[in-house]
Formats: sequence, C-alpha cells, structure tokens
Amino acid sequence: MEITHIEHIGIAVKSIEEQLPYYEGILGLKCYNVETVEDQKVKTAFFKVGQTKIELLEPTGPESTIAKFIEKRGEGIHHIAYATKAVNEALKEVEAKGVRLIDHQTRPGAEGLQIAFLHPKSTGGVLTELCEHP
Amino acid sequence: MEITHIEHIGIAVKSIEEQLPYYEGILGLKCYNVETVEDQKVKTAFFKVGQTKIELLEPTGPESTIAKFIEKRGEGIHHIAYATKAVNEALKEVEAKGVRLIDHQTRPGAEGLQIAFLHPKSTGGVLTELCEHP
Repeated sequence: MEITHIEHIGIAVKSIEEQLPYYEGILGLKCYNVETVEDQKVKTAFFKVGQTKIELLEPTGPESTIAKFIEKRGEGIHHIAYATKAVNEALKEVEAKGVRLIDHQTRPGAEGLQIAFLHPKSTGGVLTELCEHP
Repeated sequence: MEITHIEHIGIAVKSIEEQLPYYEGILGLKCYNVETVEDQKVKTAFFKVGQTKIELLEPTGPESTIAKFIEKRGEGIHHIAYATKAVNEALKEVEAKGVRLIDHQTRPGAEGLQIAFLHPKSTGGVLTELCEHP
C-alpha cells in the first residue's frame, strides 16, 4: 500500500451549524460542501486545509454510529482517512498481515470517494479509513 | 489567522515501539525522527504523510498528560496541529473572539516548532494546537 496523503480527518459534532463559527470565524477555513450520506446516517461538511480536508460528521438520527460515538466519548476527532490507490487490494494485503477489517471491500463515501475502515483494535485505537477516488 | 496546512496529527500510544509494526509494516510509512520533549514528558515519533506528519506520543512517566489521556480514554487520536504564521498574534486574535486558551503564548515543541494549544471546550471537543516554524 502506498499512502499519498491524509485525505481527511473526520470530526464528530452534534451540530454542523453550531461548529461553523469556530471553523469559519476562528480558524478562517471555508465550508465548501455539505452532503448527507444516507448509508452512514450522517450529514457531512467539508473544509480544505492544504492537502487535507476537515470533515465534520453530524448524526442524522440516534441510531447513527456518530450519535453513538458522541454519546460514549463526546464530540471530537473520530477518524483519520489515508488516501491510497487500489483500496480493495490494500484491504487484502493488510488483512493478510493480521489487521482486523470493518469493511472487507470499499463502499461509497462522501465526495465520490470509495472508502473502507480498519478496526481500531488493529490500529492502536485509531479508527482508520482508507480511501480512493475511483 | 491564515492556516496553511495540517502540520501534524498527535496520537497517544502506550509504546512507540509496539506501534512501529503498524505504521511501518502495515501503512508503509517511515519513522524519520524520534525525540523526547522533557517539558511535556513525552517521547515522540514522526512519520511524514504528504504535507502532514503523524506524531506518536508516548508518555515518559505516569504524570504525563498523555499517560492521563490514555488512562481516561485509551490509546488514540490526541490532537490536531494547524500550521500558521505568527502564532502569538493568532492567540490574541482568537482569545478576543472568545476562545479559551491552554497556552497564552507559544512554547517549544518537538521538531523545533513553537506551539500553543487551544482548549477543547472552545473547539468542539478537539484538542487543537497552533504551530509555526520560528
């Protein structure tokens, strides 16, 4: 697997609207896209910071994994997403090396990405996403 | 404040040595620097991923804030560090806008950076560092 950069950092928030004054007014970033991913029951908001995006994740219902994350740990950093090529091959490669997978093959994420998660039990407690532009 | 990129992502680990097989063997990154910051009671290990570094943070003693973080929340993502210029001015600017600061002026961090932290109460639960190369 060859990782080129950090595609995004996912941050769990109760409300995107409530966080905009911090990201736009304090940090001076600009929200350029808001998108709901029904499959994951999240509303997302994106800000570009150099090569990397900040992705705010707001649950769209109480059964969302983001709602459960916030209930358990509070708002905060949720995951790191590394950009690589051929994610499905990378998944086989890392599974063969003993990594526990959440997704055995890619699925559609926000912004047209194909994404898959590695299990934090295998990554030192860091929920880790691999993603690629198809 | 003008943020240029994400300088690093800090990840709390019990042992850098135990995490190397994941970061080097699985993700294919290369540890290029290991450095102890006595002031913060941490040993750090750095990996470059595009513009951004992964900074592993291992406590050097039980009174380290990283040891306390791990005790409370387990290993995992600890903070995001944004690269900007004139951090001391940026601190004044964001404090005037109501942000609670951990550091009212910069102090030396790893890799020769001048760093300061914003309080997670003001940043949606995300421990946030501003840093600059002097």
